[in-house]
Parts: sequence; C-alpha cells; structure tokens
Amino acid sequence: MDIIKVSSRSRSPAVAGAIAGVMRERGRAEVQAIGAGAVNQAVKAVAIARGYLTLDGIDAICIPAFTTVEIEGKERTAIKLTVEPR
Amino acid sequence: MDIIKVSSRSRSPAVAGAIAGVMRERGRAEVQAIGAGAVNQAVKAVAIARGYLTLDGIDAICIPAFTTVEIEGKERTAIKLTVEPR
Repeated sequence: MDIIKVSSRSRSPAVAGAIAGVMRERGRAEVQAIGAGAVNQAVKAVAIARGYLTLDGIDAICIPAFTTVEIEGKERTAIKLTVEPR
Repeated sequence: MDIIKVSSRSRSPAVAGAIAGVMRERGRAEVQAIGAGAVNQAVKAVAIARGYLTLDGIDAICIPAFTTVEIEGKERTAIKLTVEPR
C-alpha cells in the first residue's frame, strides 16, 4: 500500500482528502510523519478526514505507532498513523 | 472525566502511563494538546500506551478531533485524542 507522507509544510485539508480517498478505495490508509510539525499536520488531517468519511458512513479510527525509516542513508524514527474503519 | 493535558515538555512515557491507568480504570481516556510539540508528545504517548495496554488484552485506538479551549481568556484550538478500546 502507498504510504501518505506528511511534512510540516503539508496542508492538512489536502492530506485529509488523500486519506479519505485511500480509505474509500482500499479500506485503510497509512500516514507517515517525521518530527513534531509533521506529526501535528498528520493528526489534524486525520481529524478532518474523519469528518469527510462520516458522510460516507465510515467511522474512521487511528492507530499510532513508531516506525524506522531510512533517509539519505540515516535511520530516523517516524510516526505511522494507520487509519481504519472502527 | 479528567482530561490528560499534554505540553511540548511532557515526557511521553509518563503520559503513556497516565493514559494506560485511566484506560484500565474507566475504559477510555481523553488527551488534550495545544501546538505541534504537544500534539507530537501526545501521539507518541498513545503509541507507547498501546504497548502497555496490549499486555492487558486491550487493543487501544485513538480518535483525533479539534476542540476549543479557553486559556487566560483567549480561545485556542486544541487537539483532543480520545483513546478507547477498539
């Protein structure tokens, strides 16, 4: 599954649209963020996406977890938010 | 229900312990954070709390939402994370 990567400069309504689109198509979405600014945008996006998905009768919940990603040869700790129907 | 308030200086393992304790006692917990640093600590705390609660057979999920709080007479937008069993 494609991972929705969020940065601190991502617009949360745009990310929310992506989350809602993937949820409708595939039933779940994965969002990845590194750093406080990115995690904040990602969480706001999930809150907004929940509103979009409620209109489709989907009660979306979110499962946060730590994950390790490699960026330019260095390991970084990222937050992964898995969005699923309840 | 008491709300667990998280700041950017909160230690996420300590917040995780509080979340797990409230979950065990009351079956759900509410976490509130204002600003990117605080939201980041709150999300990390939920990820850690999930690990604690798995040991108790609880599959904890999280529902992010916007909320408005008044601080020193001014309205601020906060993120509320409701933690519940799946």
